[in-house]
Amino acid sequence: MRTAYHEQLAELNTTLGEMCELSGVTMEHATNALLQADLSVAEQLLDDRERMTHLTSAAEDQAFKLLALQAPVAGELREIVSGFQIVADIDRMYALALHVAKVARRRHPEPALPEEVRGYFAEMGRLAVRLANGAREVLDTSDPQKALALGVDDDAMDDLHKHLFTVLMDRDWPHGVAAAVDVTLLGRYYERFADHAVSIGRRVVFQATGQTPEQIADAAKD
Amino acid sequence: MRTAYHEQLAELNTTLGEMCELSGVTMEHATNALLQADLSVAEQLLDDRERMTHLTSAAEDQAFKLLALQAPVAGELREIVSGFQIVADIDRMYALALHVAKVARRRHPEPALPEEVRGYFAEMGRLAVRLANGAREVLDTSDPQKALALGVDDDAMDDLHKHLFTVLMDRDWPHGVAAAVDVTLLGRYYERFADHAVSIGRRVVFQATGQTPEQIADAAKD
Repeated sequence: MRTAYHEQLAELNTTLGEMCELSGVTMEHATNALLQADLSVAEQLLDDRERMTHLTSAAEDQAFKLLALQAPVAGELREIVSGFQIVADIDRMYALALHVAKVARRRHPEPALPEEVRGYFAEMGRLAVRLANGAREVLDTSDPQKALALGVDDDAMDDLHKHLFTVLMDRDWPHGVAAAVDVTLLGRYYERFADHAVSIGRRVVFQATGQTPEQIADAAKD
Repeated sequence: MRTAYHEQLAELNTTLGEMCELSGVTMEHATNALLQADLSVAEQLLDDRERMTHLTSAAEDQAFKLLALQAPVAGELREIVSGFQIVADIDRMYALALHVAKVARRRHPEPALPEEVRGYFAEMGRLAVRLANGAREVLDTSDPQKALALGVDDDAMDDLHKHLFTVLMDRDWPHGVAAAVDVTLLGRYYERFADHAVSIGRRVVFQATGQTPEQIADAAKD
C-alpha cells in the first residue's frame, strides 16, 4: 500500500545522492584550482551553477510531492522534513566549494596558498571529497557504520584545521597577513563542508533507526 | 474551518520570534564580552544554552503538529516547511553568536580585538542585533518593507566587513597574524549572522506573497 511512497522517497534519495556527488566533484575541482592557481577551472565552476540549482529544485519538488500526495504518517513526515534539511546541507556544501573557487580566482595569477600549507589543503580537499561521497553512500544505504566513518574523517579534518592554525600562529609565519586571512577563511570553508557531510549522515541514520550513529556504536559494544 | 491551522501557525511564529530575539540578545552580550574582554559574560552565554535548545525543539514540534494534524494544503505545506528552514537559520545565528563568545573566552584576559578594529565590531554587533530584531518583526508582520530594510542593514554589514579587510590587509597592520586570524573569523561570524536574518525575511515574505521583497519593491516603482 505504501509502495508509491517508498518509490517516491527512493527518487528523492537518488536526487540527494546526485547533489552530494556534485558538491564533492565541485570541491575536488575547486581544490585543484586553488592548488594550481588555475583560473579557468575556478571560473568554470563559478559560471556553471545550473545543475545544482536544477537538482535542488527537483529535490524540493519531490519532497513537496511526498508531503502533498502520499498522506504520510508521523515517521514519514520526519523523513521528508529531514530530506529538506539535507537539501540545505548539500546546498551549503556546494556554496562552500564555490567559495574556495572564488579565493583561487581572486588571487590569480598568484597562488592563494603559500607553499608550506599546500599539503594541508591537498589533504583537506581529499577528505572533503571523501566526506561528500560518504554522505552519498549513507543516503543509499542508511548504514550507521558508514555514518560513523564520516565522523572519523571529520575528526581528521578538524585536526588538520587545528594544525593549520598552529602554522599560521607561528611567530615566523613569513607570508604576511593577506595570505593568513585567505588561509583562515579557506580552512573554515573546508571545516564547514565536513560538518555538513557529517550532519547528513546523522540525519539519515537517525531517520532510519531513531538513534544517532554513536548510540548504535555504543550499543554494539555492550 | 482553518482556524485551528492558523492558531497553531501563529504559535509557531511566536516561538520563532522568541528564538530570533534570543539569538539577537546572545549576539549583543557576546559582542559586549568581546569588546570588554569580559570572561564571565562569555562563559555565561556558553553555559546557558538550554533555552534555545528548548525553543528549537518546541518550534519543530509545533511544525510537525501542523503537518500531521491539520491536513495542510499545498501553500500551507510550503509555509510549514519554511518554518523548519527558519528554525535552522535561527539556530545557526545563535551558534554564530556563541562562536563570538568563544573567541572572547579563548583570548581572555587579553582583548581579542586590537583597538583600531573595535569600532567595526561595535557597529557590526549593533547591526546584528537590529537584524535579529528585524527578522522577528518580519515574522510578526510579513511586511515586505521590513524585509527590505533587513537587506539594507545586511549591505551595511557587508561594507563594514569589506572595510575590515582593507584594515587587515594594510601593510602596516602591526598586530600580528594571530590577531588577524581572530578578526577574520569574527568578521565572518557577523557577516553570516546577517545573511541568515535576511534569509528569514525573504522566506517569510515569499511565503506570504509568492514574491521576494525585491520583486515587491520593483512592482511598487512601476
